[in-house]
Amino acid sequence: MLIGDSEMAEGSQWEAIQIAAHYKLDNLIGILDVNRLGQRGETMYGHDLGAYEKRISAFGWETILIDGHSYHEIQTAFEKALNIKEIPIMIIARTLKGKGVSFLEDKNGWHGKAVKKEDLKKALEELGEIDKSIQGDIKKPEELKPARLEAKEIPEVSYPADKPVATRKAYGNALKRIFPSFPDIVVLDAEVSNSTYSEIFRDEYPERFFEMYIAEQNMVGASLGFSSRGKIPFVSTFAAFLTRAYDQIRMSQYSDANIKFCGSHAGVSIGEDGASQMGLEDIAIFRAILNSVVLYPSDAVSTEKLVEEMAKHKGIVYLRTTRKETPIIYNKDEKFIIGGSKVLRKSDMDVICVIAAGITLHEALQAYDELKKENISVRIIDLYSIKPIDQITLQEAAKNTKAFITVEDHFSEGGIGEAVRSAITESHVPVYSLAVRKIPKCGKPAELLDYEEISKNAIISKVRSLL
Amino acid sequence: MLIGDSEMAEGSQWEAIQIAAHYKLDNLIGILDVNRLGQRGETMYGHDLGAYEKRISAFGWETILIDGHSYHEIQTAFEKALNIKEIPIMIIARTLKGKGVSFLEDKNGWHGKAVKKEDLKKALEELGEIDKSIQGDIKKPEELKPARLEAKEIPEVSYPADKPVATRKAYGNALKRIFPSFPDIVVLDAEVSNSTYSEIFRDEYPERFFEMYIAEQNMVGASLGFSSRGKIPFVSTFAAFLTRAYDQIRMSQYSDANIKFCGSHAGVSIGEDGASQMGLEDIAIFRAILNSVVLYPSDAVSTEKLVEEMAKHKGIVYLRTTRKETPIIYNKDEKFIIGGSKVLRKSDMDVICVIAAGITLHEALQAYDELKKENISVRIIDLYSIKPIDQITLQEAAKNTKAFITVEDHFSEGGIGEAVRSAITESHVPVYSLAVRKIPKCGKPAELLDYEEISKNAIISKVRSLL
Repeated sequence: MLIGDSEMAEGSQWEAIQIAAHYKLDNLIGILDVNRLGQRGETMYGHDLGAYEKRISAFGWETILIDGHSYHEIQTAFEKALNIKEIPIMIIARTLKGKGVSFLEDKNGWHGKAVKKEDLKKALEELGEIDKSIQGDIKKPEELKPARLEAKEIPEVSYPADKPVATRKAYGNALKRIFPSFPDIVVLDAEVSNSTYSEIFRDEYPERFFEMYIAEQNMVGASLGFSSRGKIPFVSTFAAFLTRAYDQIRMSQYSDANIKFCGSHAGVSIGEDGASQMGLEDIAIFRAILNSVVLYPSDAVSTEKLVEEMAKHKGIVYLRTTRKETPIIYNKDEKFIIGGSKVLRKSDMDVICVIAAGITLHEALQAYDELKKENISVRIIDLYSIKPIDQITLQEAAKNTKAFITVEDHFSEGGIGEAVRSAITESHVPVYSLAVRKIPKCGKPAELLDYEEISKNAIISKVRSLL
Repeated sequence: MLIGDSEMAEGSQWEAIQIAAHYKLDNLIGILDVNRLGQRGETMYGHDLGAYEKRISAFGWETILIDGHSYHEIQTAFEKALNIKEIPIMIIARTLKGKGVSFLEDKNGWHGKAVKKEDLKKALEELGEIDKSIQGDIKKPEELKPARLEAKEIPEVSYPADKPVATRKAYGNALKRIFPSFPDIVVLDAEVSNSTYSEIFRDEYPERFFEMYIAEQNMVGASLGFSSRGKIPFVSTFAAFLTRAYDQIRMSQYSDANIKFCGSHAGVSIGEDGASQMGLEDIAIFRAILNSVVLYPSDAVSTEKLVEEMAKHKGIVYLRTTRKETPIIYNKDEKFIIGGSKVLRKSDMDVICVIAAGITLHEALQAYDELKKENISVRIIDLYSIKPIDQITLQEAAKNTKAFITVEDHFSEGGIGEAVRSAITESHVPVYSLAVRKIPKCGKPAELLDYEEISKNAIISKVRSLL
């Protein structure tokens, strides 16, 4: 692991340093290149190696200080490091940027800049012959061998039809249920496994579960490591807190990552916990990842089936779960695919199509029942796969109805409404979006859905206003 | 400043701890409540106060260990803290969750849970009479007095019409130019001031500039502090790196924040620096903040004018700037308002309307010239204000043309295309979006714009395909 001195100001470094010592990772050797110069000038500690030594060793690491230009000192440091047990090791190397070239050495202003052709000649002359005393082949890492897939049959999903279950709980149940068929699964959580329900998996397979504490950036970084080593990491925390790791999530798209994210406590429907805990921008940030999959199930059965699809799919997948219990609406034999949707209510009389997912789907179904009493017939679509989106079903609905209403427990930008508009861009059907548009208050879930105008009542009045 | 023990795993804490010592903030006193229990069980260090003491003091803080249940020890610690100079102080307090109530004290499983009515009675009985020995009024903080606005006239913008200038440079110039009229401005940068060009301000007003090093989370947290104290913080780094602070940006919307963000190096047009440095989701994340403003100027003049508007506007504003030089297209007397747009090419013959901003606006203008030679007339709109969006101008264009083409150096989700679709939802005009849809390569800016099909050539062939 090679680290620059400038980036030691970054908190994610200290998350990693802290947890590596906690888990006694003695196979982790870092080299900290202290060359004094950041992009714009001197770093916080310049060439004060002791400043790094003091901080890193206080975090429980062994530290070895060297002259980073001495092959001998580098080699000796590595030999020493290999014999240290139970704690990670940081080799802190003093170096000079542009070492050996008079007009570059230890000079500011060369970050990210190439030397000109005439200067390059001069530089190479000054460097003279290259010391090849340490040269050879580097041992290649062991070949990856994924855990043997024991073609076990996945146990069936089983929920009593009349007992509501939170989708977050179904997430935990699903991980436990499918693990024997996906033995490469590892599960990471940021100290909220009793809320995301990844604890259901942990209790069954503790050796495949990693408590990453409240350090989301490092959790996502570590999951990328697992993915690179052929594992299938499932990473969970509150949807709101995944925003904290968005740089790491963004970067993983450039590393061919196979990571499954689960954000629980989505939307204002969490109720009393308050705005800081509400995931309201998670759909937007995960949609904006190239080739990502964004799933948002509404009941325990669809959650279980979609977690299975997540495990099968290679790539970045996001699953959004809900805090409160929701009724079971699907039969255990129902099929769910990435890129699919379900048309739950449909007739030849439909004038308006209501598109919802997760918590708001239940509001839409209730609205349907009430509107039916008034002989108003609406189509209801469960858009459980927000990306990729079921363009065919949406385009068909656009042919058969005069307006779409999307309903989402999420801010309007980058969410379900905009995803639907982008899916039917050549159609003439207007898409009205009911979404969170006011600073959320504290209150009971139903009150908050009403306040944000994404509840059954809001759907009914929007439908009426369009007739 | 009150801190919980669980959150000490979070890197943002260490960013703040590190920089507070660097800047010798002896008026900063933290109280770390070490109650051993996180949400889901024991924290990384449990009741080991020494673990915190070692780490925090290594980072250059004075530490004082106390029994957090002793009023006397708390008071003595504060008295001691007031006399410590040149370094920040952390009071590390050992506490017990639910102290004094037999069935709660030091017990796991009570995080975020309320006691039942019958248990509450028992708990209050056990607690007995409350010790009121330390009670009184807390001194209120000084009243905020914003810097006196010296109704100075803002100097005029001045750029030679024939010399291209990067919008990021115009950002720096603007800050320096307008400061005398907005003396509450402070500028923060994350060790890239020579790239964002906030260094132009720093060189003129060093005492109003804060080097926050590579620690974006703490930079945004600190800017919220400045905002709460009546300052106007301008916060800059690469657009890509603002993703790292998205939790802090998200949280600032719930604190009535008045923060101005500037993300430089937007899009694939940065060229050779590579994908990790390209801001490609920044419009999406800032649009998804309630009541935010998102601006994306295309030349130096509009940038300067919009920085002025940012300073005047109360709230969260994001400005997106471009790395490479772009031609001056506006006259220095041109007016730019939040929520506005500019119709740059217009005729009665327009069949298609091309909507762009920033770097792609120049591509659109070049496409216009080439298409004109073929007698194809397109309307060109500069959508410099992406949020709020100029609905009136777009709706008018929708009446007069048969299709929209949006062009953006950004991923398609949550960007300009979706913003435009949402603005004209009741219109029948299809909106075709040219956006970044492939993993960006390394190369020259023009090559990358072509590769992602957001260049002049891509616009021309899209227009032709629609005719």
